[in-house]
Amino acid sequence: MSQEKKAVVLVSGGLDSATTLAIAQQAGYHCHAISFDYGQRHRCELEAAQHVVRRARVNIHKRVVLNLNEIGGSALTDESIDVPKHGSAGIPITYVPARNTVFLALALGWAEVLGAYDIFIGVNAVDYSGYPDCRPEFIRAFERLANLATRAGVEGQHFAVHAPLIHLTKAQIIQRGIDLGVDYGLTISCYDPDASGAACGECDACRLRREGFLAAGIPDPTIYQASSLPK
Amino acid sequence: MSQEKKAVVLVSGGLDSATTLAIAQQAGYHCHAISFDYGQRHRCELEAAQHVVRRARVNIHKRVVLNLNEIGGSALTDESIDVPKHGSAGIPITYVPARNTVFLALALGWAEVLGAYDIFIGVNAVDYSGYPDCRPEFIRAFERLANLATRAGVEGQHFAVHAPLIHLTKAQIIQRGIDLGVDYGLTISCYDPDASGAACGECDACRLRREGFLAAGIPDPTIYQASSLPK
Repeated sequence: MSQEKKAVVLVSGGLDSATTLAIAQQAGYHCHAISFDYGQRHRCELEAAQHVVRRARVNIHKRVVLNLNEIGGSALTDESIDVPKHGSAGIPITYVPARNTVFLALALGWAEVLGAYDIFIGVNAVDYSGYPDCRPEFIRAFERLANLATRAGVEGQHFAVHAPLIHLTKAQIIQRGIDLGVDYGLTISCYDPDASGAACGECDACRLRREGFLAAGIPDPTIYQASSLPK
Repeated sequence: MSQEKKAVVLVSGGLDSATTLAIAQQAGYHCHAISFDYGQRHRCELEAAQHVVRRARVNIHKRVVLNLNEIGGSALTDESIDVPKHGSAGIPITYVPARNTVFLALALGWAEVLGAYDIFIGVNAVDYSGYPDCRPEFIRAFERLANLATRAGVEGQHFAVHAPLIHLTKAQIIQRGIDLGVDYGLTISCYDPDASGAACGECDACRLRREGFLAAGIPDPTIYQASSLPK
């Protein structure tokens, strides 16, 4: 009998990570989900993460609490900075300094404890917000680091960091997820949802998501705030 | 007038990081200290960190709380695993999976917010416990990652990760610190101190520290638990 392949999957509650989890499961991995309660403004994504993980029948879901508000510097972790409601040139203010480095580092620590040598992250370098830590060169550099940083790496195991969405458009991601049975109605992408979790419809994340459903020709299950319904 | 050089220095409360802070200050950096409350068994090192930072007249000291107990896998973060009181072959059970990757990632995020492009960490590859994330190749790989992971890196700034102790023996580190006026009586290295902060005298960290003072010919200011005084 072949040994069970274990993976750690970063699940934010958004569309991309829900798709990534489905891809990892289809590839035969026994998935362990990890989510981060990092002081994000859009905390309701954590509840979405729980729904996504349950629906995928993943039994082990770790939620790590860490306070990135302490560090600040982003509209997502600093309440005094507004979430922009229109695209901007360059890297937007929703960029959270070193976020994916921190998240992957924590996922790596847990992966090493579990004996899971495959880590899945739903970053995307096509329809994305321009974050530096969503690029293929970042993922490759982290994978290299992971194998130098850990006991398992030193002892001859190889950690692989998988970013299966990295070269897909948002429409392709959605199509792939639909094929795999992902229920996107459970996911939340908005950076600035209201208290009920309804999406603002105007931030970068909403815009990319809405355009993705449109381009894929798939009905958008997102619940938008009444004030922001498409004109 | 030349621009002020800002640095972020990881300060644990131990001997190595206190020396690293003094080295960074002597090199002319305006230092910002960061410490991690990560669920370590030897939490009193955080109080030591505060004393070290105050004594060095560093005004900005950030303490980031994150719960690595959630991840476990180490005698330092899992109360059910005893701290070994004798040397062992290979990487010891006090290794905390991905710890320095997590700490450097958080330091990097803060550094980016501050506009500090120099990060100092007191890792040491000579008289150390055999941790993979204390080696020069790890530090170089992290520096490379830092410049790919961040907005500042993408926009042409260069993050440097300095590990000024990496090739020094413990005795050399202590000699260097004494020359710079470090008060090692404020520092705590022990992995398993008692409630008062007194050192066990027997764990790897105590052994390396005690041998370092002996080899440097400098009186050891450590307060040891009565039961563990040198025979």
